[in-house]
Amino acid sequence: MTVKMIVVGSVAYDTLQTPIGKRERALGGSATYFSTVSSYFTDVGLVGVAGDDFEEGHIAFLKKHGVDMEGFERVKGKTFHWSGSYGADFADATTHATHLNVFESFDPKLPKAYQKVEFLFLANIHPALQMKVISQVKKPRLIAMDTMNFWIASALKDLKQVIAKVDILFLNMQEALMLSGQKKLATAIPALLKLGPKRLVIKMGELGAMTASAKTRFFVPAFPLPDIVDPTGAGDSFAGGFMGSLARNGDLTENGFRRSMLYGSAMGAFTCENFSLDTYKNLTKSRIEQRFNKIKGMIEVK
Amino acid sequence: MTVKMIVVGSVAYDTLQTPIGKRERALGGSATYFSTVSSYFTDVGLVGVAGDDFEEGHIAFLKKHGVDMEGFERVKGKTFHWSGSYGADFADATTHATHLNVFESFDPKLPKAYQKVEFLFLANIHPALQMKVISQVKKPRLIAMDTMNFWIASALKDLKQVIAKVDILFLNMQEALMLSGQKKLATAIPALLKLGPKRLVIKMGELGAMTASAKTRFFVPAFPLPDIVDPTGAGDSFAGGFMGSLARNGDLTENGFRRSMLYGSAMGAFTCENFSLDTYKNLTKSRIEQRFNKIKGMIEVK
Repeated sequence: MTVKMIVVGSVAYDTLQTPIGKRERALGGSATYFSTVSSYFTDVGLVGVAGDDFEEGHIAFLKKHGVDMEGFERVKGKTFHWSGSYGADFADATTHATHLNVFESFDPKLPKAYQKVEFLFLANIHPALQMKVISQVKKPRLIAMDTMNFWIASALKDLKQVIAKVDILFLNMQEALMLSGQKKLATAIPALLKLGPKRLVIKMGELGAMTASAKTRFFVPAFPLPDIVDPTGAGDSFAGGFMGSLARNGDLTENGFRRSMLYGSAMGAFTCENFSLDTYKNLTKSRIEQRFNKIKGMIEVK
Repeated sequence: MTVKMIVVGSVAYDTLQTPIGKRERALGGSATYFSTVSSYFTDVGLVGVAGDDFEEGHIAFLKKHGVDMEGFERVKGKTFHWSGSYGADFADATTHATHLNVFESFDPKLPKAYQKVEFLFLANIHPALQMKVISQVKKPRLIAMDTMNFWIASALKDLKQVIAKVDILFLNMQEALMLSGQKKLATAIPALLKLGPKRLVIKMGELGAMTASAKTRFFVPAFPLPDIVDPTGAGDSFAGGFMGSLARNGDLTENGFRRSMLYGSAMGAFTCENFSLDTYKNLTKSRIEQRFNKIKGMIEVK
């Protein structure tokens, strides 16, 4: 298999409580969500590390989805473990504990076959590691990255260096304001574009998400879910749907990006419908297209 | 002229400071903004009251726009006067003083010709007065109302009685959460629809606005303005564009409401480009259609 896209990020176990119930050591991690979701669209490889406690069944789950595991390592020690809970309104998670474990010494090295990858997604890891990955790829068509408030606060210099190298920056609304030092999106967007990326994807939770380039703005609503079960991984799933559909269609025009925003919204919602990656145990491509068309109908004006 | 739509609300003078500058006794008031904006789309009548200090030039301004003034009264005393300021980010206004003056004893009585009006907009006034207006109209095709946190906190029972009588409820996101007692829109929307209205229009400031019915959701982004001058009246202008275009087109289908959301967004942005109602000194219908098409292009996906 020639891998068209790779993701570099975390592989984790999550112990979490939502208003619907709780789960212990559920499969999680940004690279896990991203690769599983994007596997519905393109040939994707996962670059990440797990401990020797990482279950064979979870490797089998990823492989069954066609995720290429050449860049995945299992090393001595324990897998990254996050535990947290969500309040009654499913707002931001409260973290109870973060045990980085083997992820602490994660040092991504790309297999030779991955160095010529067309699409690269740098999930939310230390910006110095993101930069290290960028230095290992030759001429990709498109590089996108995610980040978070923690790196904005603690590794701003490194972060800005990576941002200058990527085509698309993913972040949420609060992070967009924080990183730009602005108080509203209207001024935050041009300030962030000045850092280098040609495009932003700004996630806005239950409101949906926005994409902005110097001259364009496009908003996709969140697919209304009457019953959210677990929002963990929604952002990485959005990115997986966005990047996966871009890689599949190869259409890097404004309209291509807009279609990818709709796929992102569809996949983010699918993830929230069940704990962990449970949705993907039996999700079909035709259900994805159905949801894409529903979201398209939500924004259509004749 | 047969008036197709009426608005009942305030006529005011505003003294205000924005990061761009200040204005003293600028023309303002919800009914003033709404009627001026909607005059570009339909025959609208203004029901409101001003004091004997209300300038002839301002009456001439409204009349020049074709606003029917049969329901407008000038009485002894001073016109409603609001003064406030906006911070660096143009976020919510800080009110320095509210002098209700003649507006305090506003007791809307509809001229006979207005009782058979097709479209009625109840701007943000005491819900008991809104109810009084509803009792004076015969079978309108559509009634919409605006409200605010102040009435939710101080006149909830009256407010709920009016809401039960209207087709469309306008409010902002914070008010939607406050009135529903919910923490997110996904649950706030069904809770608000249970109060009676068939549709909500939820204003979200610089993010845009959303409309929701039992089975539909539609989002329109705010038109990106590099230079906001004065956001006063943006919400009433949104409502004026929304209701005016509905009245003009008479299309009360989902697609008709969506088109009206785009007109609302266009008009809200026009108002913010200048102090007070200055934009409307020389705005043309063709510029409105141009902006409508730009916003339509912002959300189009092929």
